[in-house]
Amino acid sequence: MFEAKLANAGLLKKIVESIKDLVTDAPFDCSETSMSLQAMDSSHVAFVCLKLNARFFDTYRCDRPINLGLSLANMSKYLKQVSNDDTCMLKYDEKKSEQIGFIFDGRNSKETEWTLKLMNIDSVAWQIPNEEYSVVCEMPAAEFQKACKELTTFSDTMNIKATRTAITFTGKGDIGSSVVTYSPSSSTDDENDAISLEVKHPVNVNFSIKYMNQFTKATTLGDRVRLWLSNDAPGIVEYPIENNGFLKFHLAPQICDDDNLD
Amino acid sequence: MFEAKLANAGLLKKIVESIKDLVTDAPFDCSETSMSLQAMDSSHVAFVCLKLNARFFDTYRCDRPINLGLSLANMSKYLKQVSNDDTCMLKYDEKKSEQIGFIFDGRNSKETEWTLKLMNIDSVAWQIPNEEYSVVCEMPAAEFQKACKELTTFSDTMNIKATRTAITFTGKGDIGSSVVTYSPSSSTDDENDAISLEVKHPVNVNFSIKYMNQFTKATTLGDRVRLWLSNDAPGIVEYPIENNGFLKFHLAPQICDDDNLD
Amino acid sequence: MFEAKLANAGLLKKIVESIKDLVTDAPFDCSETSMSLQAMDSSHVAFVCLKLNARFFDTYRCDRPINLGLSLANMSKYLKQVSNDDTCMLKYDEKKSEQIGFIFDGRNSKETEWTLKLMNIDSVAWQIPNEEYSVVCEMPAAEFQKACKELTTFSDTMNIKATRTAITFTGKGDIGSSVVTYSPSSSTDDENDAISLEVKHPVNVNFSIKYMNQFTKATTLGDRVRLWLSNDAPGIVEYPIENNGFLKFHLAPQICDDDNLD
Repeated sequence: MFEAKLANAGLLKKIVESIKDLVTDAPFDCSETSMSLQAMDSSHVAFVCLKLNARFFDTYRCDRPINLGLSLANMSKYLKQVSNDDTCMLKYDEKKSEQIGFIFDGRNSKETEWTLKLMNIDSVAWQIPNEEYSVVCEMPAAEFQKACKELTTFSDTMNIKATRTAITFTGKGDIGSSVVTYSPSSSTDDENDAISLEVKHPVNVNFSIKYMNQFTKATTLGDRVRLWLSNDAPGIVEYPIENNGFLKFHLAPQICDDDNLD
Repeated sequence: MFEAKLANAGLLKKIVESIKDLVTDAPFDCSETSMSLQAMDSSHVAFVCLKLNARFFDTYRCDRPINLGLSLANMSKYLKQVSNDDTCMLKYDEKKSEQIGFIFDGRNSKETEWTLKLMNIDSVAWQIPNEEYSVVCEMPAAEFQKACKELTTFSDTMNIKATRTAITFTGKGDIGSSVVTYSPSSSTDDENDAISLEVKHPVNVNFSIKYMNQFTKATTLGDRVRLWLSNDAPGIVEYPIENNGFLKFHLAPQICDDDNLD
Repeated sequence: MFEAKLANAGLLKKIVESIKDLVTDAPFDCSETSMSLQAMDSSHVAFVCLKLNARFFDTYRCDRPINLGLSLANMSKYLKQVSNDDTCMLKYDEKKSEQIGFIFDGRNSKETEWTLKLMNIDSVAWQIPNEEYSVVCEMPAAEFQKACKELTTFSDTMNIKATRTAITFTGKGDIGSSVVTYSPSSSTDDENDAISLEVKHPVNVNFSIKYMNQFTKATTLGDRVRLWLSNDAPGIVEYPIENNGFLKFHLAPQICDDDNLD
C-alpha cells in the first residue's frame, strides 16, 4: 500500500509541467522516506532528478519500496482540468497493481477519483558523482529565467562566466549580442531578491540555451534557483521545493569556438 | 415594427457565443410576449431552444409576429468589437424588410448603428414532448463545466448515474478513467453553491462529451445549470437567463457497451 | 558619440511595436535636438514620421548628426524580453561604428548590455507639404481604435465624413454595414474623453481599413489621437508622445465607387 496526500493539487501540476517536455514517461521510486525520480531526457543530453521527502506530503505511507511508471504527458492533460486548491491523494494498492488512483477533494461536496494505468518503465539507478563544484550561485528563479530568455534572441549558446565579483551570461550571434551581469548582493530588503556567489575557482562554460529555457519552466516551483558550475563538468540547475525536496537538472557543457565567446 | 432594447450588449454577445457553434443560421421568432429560437444543430444530434421574455428587455415592442433569420457567425464576428456595457437596441422595420438594425449607445457621445442582412431560414415548430423526468439536478454551472472538462481527458462518452444520495459523472478510456461525484447539499453559505437533486427513479445514461462541452459555453449566462434526465430519453441541459428566459439544450443519449461503463 | 537615456524601456518597446509591421528596417536620424525617423512602408502606401525631442529623454547627447540603421524586427524580438521599467541607455561610439549598444539597468544589481549590428539604410529627406487641412479631429485614441475594429467586420474601406456637428466612420459590405458617429463634446468630466472637431470645410474621404488598424497599434503611446483630413489629400493619424514628440502616419485616400458609400 502506498498513500500520499498533497495539500493542493496545484503543486503536483507545477512539478509535472516542469518535467513533462523532457521526460515523457517517468519511473517514480517510492520508499519509506521519499518519492523520487531520476531520468535522462529523450535526447540523452539532460538528466532530471526529482526528490520529494515524506515530510513534503500532508500524509505519507509506503509499506515497501515500489516503482510507479507514469505517463507525464497524460498526467499533464488531466491535471490541467483540476483546481489548484483541491487536495490530492495518490493511492496505490498492490491488489490493483496495474493502476494508480488520484483522489481530488474540493469544495461543493465534490469528489473526483481519477485512475491512471501504470506503465512498465525501466528505472536505472544513476550514480551521480559527488563532485566539488567551483561555483555555486543562488539567485531569484525569475531573474535566471529572464536572463535565459534575453539571450535566446541572438544565440543558441549561453556562455556563463563567474568570478568573485560577478556572474555574467552571454549570448552572441550574427546580428548582435546580449550580456547580462549580476553582482552578488546580500543587503536587499527582500531576501528572496538576494544574489549569492561562492567561487572557489572562476568558471567559463557554455550550455545550450534551449535546455536552459526548458529547465526554467520550474520557476513556478519557488522563489529561488541554485546554479552549480565547474569548467568541463555538467552544470546543475536546482530548484528547491518547499524545504522538503528539490528538482535538479544536470546538463553537459557545450564545446564552443573560443573566438566566438571571448 | 419590432423594437427591443437590452441594457447591455454583453448579454447578447454571451447568448450568441453559446449557440453559434451549434447553429450557424438561426430563425428567431418574435411575438408580442417573447423572442425565441428553436433549431437543430447542423449534425441533427442536439436541439437548441432559447426563450427571452419581453420582460427580459428594457423596452420591447412587437406589433405582429415576425421571423428574423440571422447569421450567428456574422453576429459573433461583429459583437466581438462591441463594448459589453453599451446599450443595444434591435430594430426591424417592415419597410426595410431585408435587414435588421442594431443600435449601440455608449459613452463619449458615440452612437453605432450596425445593419445586418436578414436570411431566409425555414423555421419549424417543434413539438417537445412534455415528459416527466426521473431526475432533476440543479448545480453551479461552473461545476458542471469543470466535470465535463475533467472527463474529456480519457473518454468521448460521459456516463451519468443519479441516485437519491449522489450524482456521478464517469469517463472511461484505455489509459485511465475519471469519476466525479457530487452529493446534494443545501446548507452551503452561498446558495449559488448548493446542489439539489430530485430523484423519482435512479438513472444511468450516456451522452457525447463533445456536445456537453459545447453546451457549457453557456456557463457565462448565469450561476446555475439544471439537468433533466431519464433513462432512454433525451437529456436537457438548461441555463436560466436572469429569471426572464432560458437556453435549453436537448441531447439524445448514446447507446453504450455496458461492460465499458460499469 | 551619441548617448540617450530613457526612464523606462517600456516606451521604446511601444514605439517599436507601433512601427515594426510597416517599416522593417528603419534609418534613425539623430541630431543635437532630436531623434527622428521618416520612412515609407514596404508597399509604399503609408508614410511613417516619428520625432522624439531631446527633452523626451532623461539625458541626451549627440555631438554631430548621425544616421543609425536599425532592424525593428530584431529590436522587437529582443525588447519583448526586457522589463518595462528598466532604464534604457542608447549608446553609439564612432570608434565602434558598426554597432549600437543598449544598456538596461534594473533591480537586483543586474545590468544588461545588448549590442545590435547597424544596417546601411538609405535615408531620404521627405518634403511633407505644409498643407492646410479642412478638418482636425482630436479624440480618445482608444475610441478611434474601436471604431476601426468595428468597421473591419464588414468592409475593407473606411469612409470618414466630418461636418461641424459630427464625425462619422462608415464601413459597408455585402452582409451588412456599420456606422459609428461621434458628436464633439468638451464638457466631459475627464478631458481625455473629450472629442474636439475643427471644420473649415466638410470632408468625405475613404481610406484602407487595414492600414488604419496598423496605425492604431500606437494607441499604447498615449490617451489621444489627432486626425488631419482633407478631400483628395493624404490623411494624417497623429499620436502625441508625452508632449515631447509624435508619431504620425500619412495615408493616401482610396478612390471609391460613390454609390457604394452614400
